[in-house]
Amino acid sequence: MREFIIVGRNAPTAPEFALDDLPGAGRLDLLARCVTASLLVSHGIRDDVRTHLVLGDAFTVRFDGDSLQGLNPDERSTAALIRTALERRDEAIGHVPVETSPGVSLVRMGLETTLDSLTGESTVSRLHEDGTPIAEVRPPEKAAFVLSDHTDLCPEDAAVVKGHTGLTVSLGPRPLHADHAIAVAHNWLDTSGFDAY
Amino acid sequence: MREFIIVGRNAPTAPEFALDDLPGAGRLDLLARCVTASLLVSHGIRDDVRTHLVLGDAFTVRFDGDSLQGLNPDERSTAALIRTALERRDEAIGHVPVETSPGVSLVRMGLETTLDSLTGESTVSRLHEDGTPIAEVRPPEKAAFVLSDHTDLCPEDAAVVKGHTGLTVSLGPRPLHADHAIAVAHNWLDTSGFDAY
Repeated sequence: MREFIIVGRNAPTAPEFALDDLPGAGRLDLLARCVTASLLVSHGIRDDVRTHLVLGDAFTVRFDGDSLQGLNPDERSTAALIRTALERRDEAIGHVPVETSPGVSLVRMGLETTLDSLTGESTVSRLHEDGTPIAEVRPPEKAAFVLSDHTDLCPEDAAVVKGHTGLTVSLGPRPLHADHAIAVAHNWLDTSGFDAY
Repeated sequence: MREFIIVGRNAPTAPEFALDDLPGAGRLDLLARCVTASLLVSHGIRDDVRTHLVLGDAFTVRFDGDSLQGLNPDERSTAALIRTALERRDEAIGHVPVETSPGVSLVRMGLETTLDSLTGESTVSRLHEDGTPIAEVRPPEKAAFVLSDHTDLCPEDAAVVKGHTGLTVSLGPRPLHADHAIAVAHNWLDTSGFDAY
């Protein structure tokens, strides 16, 4: 099991955004690419992945690889899945998720509640360029990674993450876009720490 | 210097395509992501990268990191840069490139001529899951990677690539989308072979 928690602080929490301007919709272009980077391989879905997109610390859209259908690699159609989820925001009551398309669900949870909801078995780490070199870390059996969007985590979110894990890992000397960081993190796990090809 | 040669066999060679349907335009969504994966880091451009997008074996759009301007991370605006380049296809005569926006040029070259045009100093390798594990390869000072789009290279293109390099490297046990493969290849070079963080 692998989990990705992607913090979109400026992401929309309502469906009124234009698919023609995803960068202008709280960088939904980047968040959509994070979803596809986490869940898709060439001609297939990673069925052992669950991705949590935390939108504006108010809602989380969850993508479950083992039941996911209709996820295509492009930004626009992925953003449309997110919009479809947000169209049902009024049905998301308490912390009960609403399945809005196969394998996609919306839940009224911010970052803290989303982190609380992770299965306790996963090794949670934050991906950040100031962390421990990932090549020095032993790949866990169940990994959960927390990433932020194009901005660094705000102090409040950083404190919430710190409350859930003291582990920060770095993927390299250059700060990467979140979707590329996900691709590298997957590769690290796929190869058991850049070892098994 | 790093170069990426991305073979888009079904990519458009004329500007008449819709930005609203990039997957339907010869998978221009994927090709656009390859461009951004090769050239962008968080809040910056990789100025040591040149990316060659080979469209339908007829035209190549070249992105030069050291002079590139106006490249944003999203698919749609990147595809618009490619469309702008193709709008000037009639001006691309012989093998003389036409600069169509800062750092972006169009040249009437297919795969073979594009590979011929590489500076002879680069170590050219094909990225493919059947290759030598990349962790066993020493990162070259100047690397050029050849990748195909969502399909494997056709036999003709594979033969052309084979005529330019005998080196095929694998990034891991799972076949990746081309843009994710680029992110991993960059990380391998950034970290001097998963060594320097």
